[in-house]
Amino acid sequence: MRRFSLALLFSWPALLFAQNPVKYVKPIIGTEKMGHTYPGATVPFGMVQLSPETDTLPYEMNGKYNPDVYKYCAGYQYTDKTIVGFSHTHFSGTGHSDLGDFLIMPTVGPLQLNPGTADKPESGYRSRFSHENETVEAAYYKVKLDEGNILAELTASNRVGFHQYTFPQSDQAHIILDLMAGIYNYGNKNVWTFVRVENDSLITGYRQTSGWARTRTVYFAMTFSKPFKKYGHQNNVNDVYKGFYRKFDQTTNFPEMAGRQIRAWFDFNTQPGEKIKIKFALSPVSTEGALLNLRTEIPGWDFDAVKQQGQELWNKELSKVSIKTAAEDDMINFYTALYHTYLSPTTYMDVDGGYRGLDQLNHKAEGFTNYTTFSLWDTYRALHPLFNILQPQRNADMVRSMLEHYNQSVHKMLPVWSHYANENWCMIGYHSVSVIADAIMKGNIKGYDANKALEACANTARYKKYDGLEYYMQLGYVPEDKNSSSVSKTLEYAYDDWCIAQVAKKLGRTDLYDEFIKRSLNYRNVFDASTGFMRPKMSDGKFRKEFDVLSTHGQGYIEGNAWNYSLYVPQYPAEMIEMMGGKKQFTGHLDSLFTMHLPDEFFAETEDITREGIIGNYVHGNEPAHHAAYLYNWTDAPWKTQERVRMILPKMYKPSSDGLGGNDDCGQMSAWYIFSSLGFYPVCPGSVEYALGSPSVQSAILQLENGKTFQVEAVNQSAANVYVRKVELNGQPFNKRFITHDDIMNGGKIVFYMDRKPKK
Amino acid sequence: MRRFSLALLFSWPALLFAQNPVKYVKPIIGTEKMGHTYPGATVPFGMVQLSPETDTLPYEMNGKYNPDVYKYCAGYQYTDKTIVGFSHTHFSGTGHSDLGDFLIMPTVGPLQLNPGTADKPESGYRSRFSHENETVEAAYYKVKLDEGNILAELTASNRVGFHQYTFPQSDQAHIILDLMAGIYNYGNKNVWTFVRVENDSLITGYRQTSGWARTRTVYFAMTFSKPFKKYGHQNNVNDVYKGFYRKFDQTTNFPEMAGRQIRAWFDFNTQPGEKIKIKFALSPVSTEGALLNLRTEIPGWDFDAVKQQGQELWNKELSKVSIKTAAEDDMINFYTALYHTYLSPTTYMDVDGGYRGLDQLNHKAEGFTNYTTFSLWDTYRALHPLFNILQPQRNADMVRSMLEHYNQSVHKMLPVWSHYANENWCMIGYHSVSVIADAIMKGNIKGYDANKALEACANTARYKKYDGLEYYMQLGYVPEDKNSSSVSKTLEYAYDDWCIAQVAKKLGRTDLYDEFIKRSLNYRNVFDASTGFMRPKMSDGKFRKEFDVLSTHGQGYIEGNAWNYSLYVPQYPAEMIEMMGGKKQFTGHLDSLFTMHLPDEFFAETEDITREGIIGNYVHGNEPAHHAAYLYNWTDAPWKTQERVRMILPKMYKPSSDGLGGNDDCGQMSAWYIFSSLGFYPVCPGSVEYALGSPSVQSAILQLENGKTFQVEAVNQSAANVYVRKVELNGQPFNKRFITHDDIMNGGKIVFYMDRKPKK
Repeated sequence: MRRFSLALLFSWPALLFAQNPVKYVKPIIGTEKMGHTYPGATVPFGMVQLSPETDTLPYEMNGKYNPDVYKYCAGYQYTDKTIVGFSHTHFSGTGHSDLGDFLIMPTVGPLQLNPGTADKPESGYRSRFSHENETVEAAYYKVKLDEGNILAELTASNRVGFHQYTFPQSDQAHIILDLMAGIYNYGNKNVWTFVRVENDSLITGYRQTSGWARTRTVYFAMTFSKPFKKYGHQNNVNDVYKGFYRKFDQTTNFPEMAGRQIRAWFDFNTQPGEKIKIKFALSPVSTEGALLNLRTEIPGWDFDAVKQQGQELWNKELSKVSIKTAAEDDMINFYTALYHTYLSPTTYMDVDGGYRGLDQLNHKAEGFTNYTTFSLWDTYRALHPLFNILQPQRNADMVRSMLEHYNQSVHKMLPVWSHYANENWCMIGYHSVSVIADAIMKGNIKGYDANKALEACANTARYKKYDGLEYYMQLGYVPEDKNSSSVSKTLEYAYDDWCIAQVAKKLGRTDLYDEFIKRSLNYRNVFDASTGFMRPKMSDGKFRKEFDVLSTHGQGYIEGNAWNYSLYVPQYPAEMIEMMGGKKQFTGHLDSLFTMHLPDEFFAETEDITREGIIGNYVHGNEPAHHAAYLYNWTDAPWKTQERVRMILPKMYKPSSDGLGGNDDCGQMSAWYIFSSLGFYPVCPGSVEYALGSPSVQSAILQLENGKTFQVEAVNQSAANVYVRKVELNGQPFNKRFITHDDIMNGGKIVFYMDRKPKK
Repeated sequence: MRRFSLALLFSWPALLFAQNPVKYVKPIIGTEKMGHTYPGATVPFGMVQLSPETDTLPYEMNGKYNPDVYKYCAGYQYTDKTIVGFSHTHFSGTGHSDLGDFLIMPTVGPLQLNPGTADKPESGYRSRFSHENETVEAAYYKVKLDEGNILAELTASNRVGFHQYTFPQSDQAHIILDLMAGIYNYGNKNVWTFVRVENDSLITGYRQTSGWARTRTVYFAMTFSKPFKKYGHQNNVNDVYKGFYRKFDQTTNFPEMAGRQIRAWFDFNTQPGEKIKIKFALSPVSTEGALLNLRTEIPGWDFDAVKQQGQELWNKELSKVSIKTAAEDDMINFYTALYHTYLSPTTYMDVDGGYRGLDQLNHKAEGFTNYTTFSLWDTYRALHPLFNILQPQRNADMVRSMLEHYNQSVHKMLPVWSHYANENWCMIGYHSVSVIADAIMKGNIKGYDANKALEACANTARYKKYDGLEYYMQLGYVPEDKNSSSVSKTLEYAYDDWCIAQVAKKLGRTDLYDEFIKRSLNYRNVFDASTGFMRPKMSDGKFRKEFDVLSTHGQGYIEGNAWNYSLYVPQYPAEMIEMMGGKKQFTGHLDSLFTMHLPDEFFAETEDITREGIIGNYVHGNEPAHHAAYLYNWTDAPWKTQERVRMILPKMYKPSSDGLGGNDDCGQMSAWYIFSSLGFYPVCPGSVEYALGSPSVQSAILQLENGKTFQVEAVNQSAANVYVRKVELNGQPFNKRFITHDDIMNGGKIVFYMDRKPKK
């Protein structure tokens, strides 16, 4: 485990509520191994994620998938020794990638327009760097680039990245704008790129790619604090009509560049210590939109002020939860997790509301903020439920964004994994309906008719061509011989169907309630009583013969094995436990999950996680069992939930670059941390209940948007006192194992009395 | 010479004014060899040119330029035996190509998604056809496709192509939409294509290409008269993220298709003789724009009505000139030429005025129609001057469109060769200034401040980086050792500069007048008195030693040799003649041009024309000497102009598929015909004078937009009586060799008294 040097020095006032929580945010957490977070500058839910790339490897090498690229989902790996440049878009914690748009790199000396290699950075424009010369804060990133002795600083507003490069004296100072660079890709995802040099310090253009998102365009406007003396570009493929070249020398000072593989450069003379600043705005609509964003969000050139504004935005959002903990590490873990939950979804509209829709048309968001980056298979579990408490307005807008996606969808389907006007169709289920149901059940849908939202959910769940759904609707399960990962799909469809039924019930749509409540029972169809596990069933109605309960691949599951996935009936935990042999047997079964040993051969095939992301056979680094520890609440041993949660928290979340045991997945991993450390968790989004666990904080105050506060207090808290002896809600004894959404949103105080012994 | 069968039967009323001129239009003229016209359906200046492709060859074969593609600039060659399909965009008469967007082909039987080959059409979706089964009219094209026994009929409104396919009985009837197909290209110009199946009979999408136009997108909306029973597509390269394919069978009934090389298909059952109709709308802005165009222009499904409306539009425009001729062929030649002049520039905006600008932003044309397809090196000569008489409103809008191009240009340059939001930089000069000057001098600039237009002209002429212009401004000529085709450029720049000076004078800008009138004399700097020709000069001020006055290549010229190009001083014919030895010597020199023999070796290197496009060494098939025959007017032998013109007219324009001796060049060749057959020609656009020639019509009435009429009468007209004995204007003897624009636009009558002997 590597520890980073603290960038902000501060004295540690034990047991005080954080006054300036941003100082506990360490964006470097998760940047090593499988966390897939990025260290760069961004503001809450910002469109721009301005962050260093330590490599941009090709997706394919010699025509084959290059497995090394997986490490670079967020562009940065902590153990790398070189930086290729700073680009403006990054996913946080995903297990697939795209983005890395508009890579900027400052250099001095002879112009080099290739990135060079990690072992020979001097062979290109990249540079060695050292973590000693690196500062990583919320909304601020700083690093010294050794090759040219250039100090690079980054900050951002919502839609504008702000670069500040301090150069040595040079008459060969360059800013490189590499339009070939991209994450998971080196140029080969590019469909088209376009650059217009509007004047001696303003550039506009766009990048169109076909990567994870099939048809994606990002527009930009880029302005320099100082006019360049000369500029040009290299077009690395011969893909443009030659009339251009006959007529002009296009390579130098030619103001319109276009092609598939372009690198542009801008030259300056610099005085010792001279700062060249760049404001780089994005837009989903047009260069005009990018310019509008640029001029609206950062009219001036005060880098420090923009950085301070960014950190103030973070403080505002982070302060919605004020906690006390015994150890500084816990403060860091908590606020960094909270920071990670506020990175996605991302703003996807210009300041005037303009955005590109899934229908490839330009739309105007009227009365809401349009969002993108919906990693819904992950985030429906705890992230959106967390937003329903801490960010209800934003979550309502996210729901609205999903419903607009539906309106623009030619399939008439809600989003599965959508970003930048694309449906990536990544992972399984139709978990938009969970997010929408959770919002409706918690009274948090705004600007959109709930009945229409319900219709969108039902239509989505009936789109026969989708991923085995026609079989599911015919047979009550997805048959493995017709559609792989059939058990995972059956279980998740059944849960999603339950969500739809809840909304139908609330809105008095008995027809829809009947239809979907019936479907919600389909989990039963894949339960194999003879093994006690969910098991792939064939289209002939028989279970598949071959069955390996430890393996993740080819067993009817995705990102989980039978041990983990068989617990996935969040809508009916009690019934599931009954089905699996009753409370006692189930308790033992669940114990085994956490205590058995998963042999290395099976870990090797488990995606997205490090060895540390597993406890026994419980895989916390992937999502399907995120609710598992809370299932003891439906047995006679709720104290085991308390024990497991308090075991998972410090084991899976550490204040170090390699502190995350698996992909953070757009904040889902971190949302688990926030809920669990506060002592409750939404086992079944779409219900209004939260299962109680064991808080790890000493106390917490949630500042709600409705003006109320909800307090958590853990009396007698310590690392050893993980068990809850009793609970009081608003001063009254509370004997239930669940609190409701209203309990929280009405304001009040929950007190956990902690103990070192379980209350059996 | 091939004659086509007349499609419209009509009796020939000798010497009557045409009541229904559309019947004389034979769009088949020029579709063989080098005419590069297309036979398909379009309306005057229409955005859609819906026309058959007889081949769509790749631009490159085995990495090398494929010379055969040159024949297919307009997609159709008369001698071909197969049709590949019908696409929606075509240039008329160009010597370079692009377009061929959205190829539609109806087939029956087993689905074939490759085009097949010309010698084995049954190996793909293409079909044999015969000219006997082909009808080619203005706004209407019909052909029987032999392979499937399908009758194909095409018509169009401005922005919508209308297809009508009559099928045999079949349960395997297909409509193929080939997004890979394109002219000069088979798929490899595609940057991206996108298709959305909105419902069972409506499709939208776009095609983005990088061909002649570097960054070009055309949007479409396509609707069928009958729902398809099934649809799908083939993606011929593996360029899309595989998540799509894992989740769905994308190939069939999947409503969103995208990729670089896509072919889509739509299946039907058909009854015997059942018609399936397709309306296919284009937009430069969005699929929404295309839908708006579709619904506005052709709300119903009456094919015959749309055809009739199209032909009425043609009648309206063609009737602006009513002529009498002795022979039907002359009627056909005239009205087909007039038809060809009304094909370009093309409408480039949606019905609501929306269009994509050169700056890649969407704009709204307020108060004017925005046009594109400006082949200015060709069309400044006679086409735009013709419009200033017959289409003044449209020409004013074209000028406005050019000025908006200037406003959107990052170079701050007027268009050189622009189409679809691109500057192709094709050919030489900055002849926009000629078109603008001609409009201003003739009082025909509207909605744009003339002073700003003048500024645009001056800025364009001062853009140093453009094509040797910096040298030209320094040295007074373009030096051949620095920039090729230097003589052509010098001469044309000098002419364009004169145009600017005229406008400057008119607007009282003495400073600009002085600057550009001085530049207009630069033709002198490349005149070599020792040879009597314009001659390439080097940067050291000396003429280049090697000099071949017959060769077109490498001699300082483009599309012309020294014999033709040395006559290019349209702004100062008298001074040029003096410089070249005076009237007498010049007359002999000009005689030689028409009578000498150009050896085959030199013809072989002459582009864009057939052998018939040359008379002696006079190359009519290219433009540089288009004014040459009129230069006798500045000598003592104006009768030779009369003689030459009457020789050129029947020799270069014939009512047959191979009737054009060279590229029609967006109507410039045809505009020469119209002017010359009416008896006058704009030797120097930007002046208000027209040189008199020898009319070939018996009489003509020009219906002017100002409500007046201008009549031409040729008394004693015959094929032998090519000489003009005397002229009367408005009943008064007229002894000048030139009439003015006002003479025409004020209305009146010019009478030529024809004779078989010259008046020496």
